Amino acid sequence: MDRKGRLYGLGVGPGDPELITLKALRLLRAAPVVGYFVAKAKASKGLGGNAFGIIEEHLHESQLRMPLVYPVTTERLEPPLSYETVISDFYDTAAVQIAEHLDAGRDVAVICEGDPFFYGSYMYLHDRLAERYEAEVIPGVCSMLGGVSALGVPLVYRNQSLMVLSGVLPEEELKRRLGDAEAAVVMKLGRNFDKVRRVLDELDLAKCALYIERATMANQRIVPLDEVEPMASPYFSLIVVPGRKWSA
Amino acid sequence: MDRKGRLYGLGVGPGDPELITLKALRLLRAAPVVGYFVAKAKASKGLGGNAFGIIEEHLHESQLRMPLVYPVTTERLEPPLSYETVISDFYDTAAVQIAEHLDAGRDVAVICEGDPFFYGSYMYLHDRLAERYEAEVIPGVCSMLGGVSALGVPLVYRNQSLMVLSGVLPEEELKRRLGDAEAAVVMKLGRNFDKVRRVLDELDLAKCALYIERATMANQRIVPLDEVEPMASPYFSLIVVPGRKWSA
Repeated sequence: MDRKGRLYGLGVGPGDPELITLKALRLLRAAPVVGYFVAKAKASKGLGGNAFGIIEEHLHESQLRMPLVYPVTTERLEPPLSYETVISDFYDTAAVQIAEHLDAGRDVAVICEGDPFFYGSYMYLHDRLAERYEAEVIPGVCSMLGGVSALGVPLVYRNQSLMVLSGVLPEEELKRRLGDAEAAVVMKLGRNFDKVRRVLDELDLAKCALYIERATMANQRIVPLDEVEPMASPYFSLIVVPGRKWSA
Repeated sequence: MDRKGRLYGLGVGPGDPELITLKALRLLRAAPVVGYFVAKAKASKGLGGNAFGIIEEHLHESQLRMPLVYPVTTERLEPPLSYETVISDFYDTAAVQIAEHLDAGRDVAVICEGDPFFYGSYMYLHDRLAERYEAEVIPGVCSMLGGVSALGVPLVYRNQSLMVLSGVLPEEELKRRLGDAEAAVVMKLGRNFDKVRRVLDELDLAKCALYIERATMANQRIVPLDEVEPMASPYFSLIVVPGRKWSA
């Protein structure tokens, strides 16, 4: 058989299994191979990752599960290791594994929490494979929008600008960008919470900022900014500075 | 009966009817009243709006259709009319109509193209009603992410910042914000295309910018920036300046 398989990057939404789209679900069910990213600690216990948990109920037995196990869970590694090298090797290897299935004519669906092209790990596979194979991305509800819906607060009105930032950024850059924003979302808080909080205080934005953990997941948690334990803030947490209400 | 109805803001995705979520679909089907925004010109021909077209096939006869007819389609009105006043009156009236159903114990689902809290008209109803009635928002796939998936280009890598802008902004502000962006999306192009194009040229960003009209809709169109007819660019068009590929 000459036909090569198709690669799908499927956004499966922010956490609530009902927030998957009809299209992602249809393509998921039809895929003979389903790839998913999972942390080493979880994989070693036989568990899937967050995205896998969202879609597990829809899989049938004949579908091949293909865990893609992250070798590291932090960007701070002890020398001589470098995050960039370790993670790049990981994506290279994952791309080779996926390509074997595609070459054999089997479609591969890689599932992605949120949206594949919005900070999704799928992007690094897409960049390695989309030139050689047919690849299609199905957009998903991103965690940012899952977060604002759960908080019940409109994000951007009319012609307001939105700034989306990673909490990993240096303090000065966070300050500069947040200071100029009309509405903002800070993602990837985790151990960066303290720094982000400091910047919000300096800019006098803390009073309008909202905090949410694991938006739309079963263990979602909304607490006032002052009650967040800085070192216990999970990676899947967000700070939202909503746009000023436009009173039309 | 004392129970008041619930208000739902349902994101129905960017255009492809399959990009609705399972949750929005379930709540849509269960709602006795379905509200939708529609332009006057369409309504007078008995047509629904874009969002209505996405979900029409799922409605059953017993559901009350409730068109919310925009009185204007442009923000530029001749004095003594002002857009702010006209549109504010419109939302006031729409909120009253919806409240009548809620007071009578009927749930109302207002459908929204894309995501309700991401530049959605639903926001202005939410601000008028959510304090008095139970209101729940179901996030949707926003047009921005529908656009990048259709273009096949990852939007933001790793810790890159994303700037989302309205093409309506003044040229100098567009230039300042785009000039500082690592990745950007410009929405609401329409008659602002020329201005945005000029800014992209001045910032030397035109060569990496991508253009798409009506992403994921049946009449989606992707053309090179140079081939866009400035005055014919529809409201539902986007320019994407993707983040620089991170080579992990």
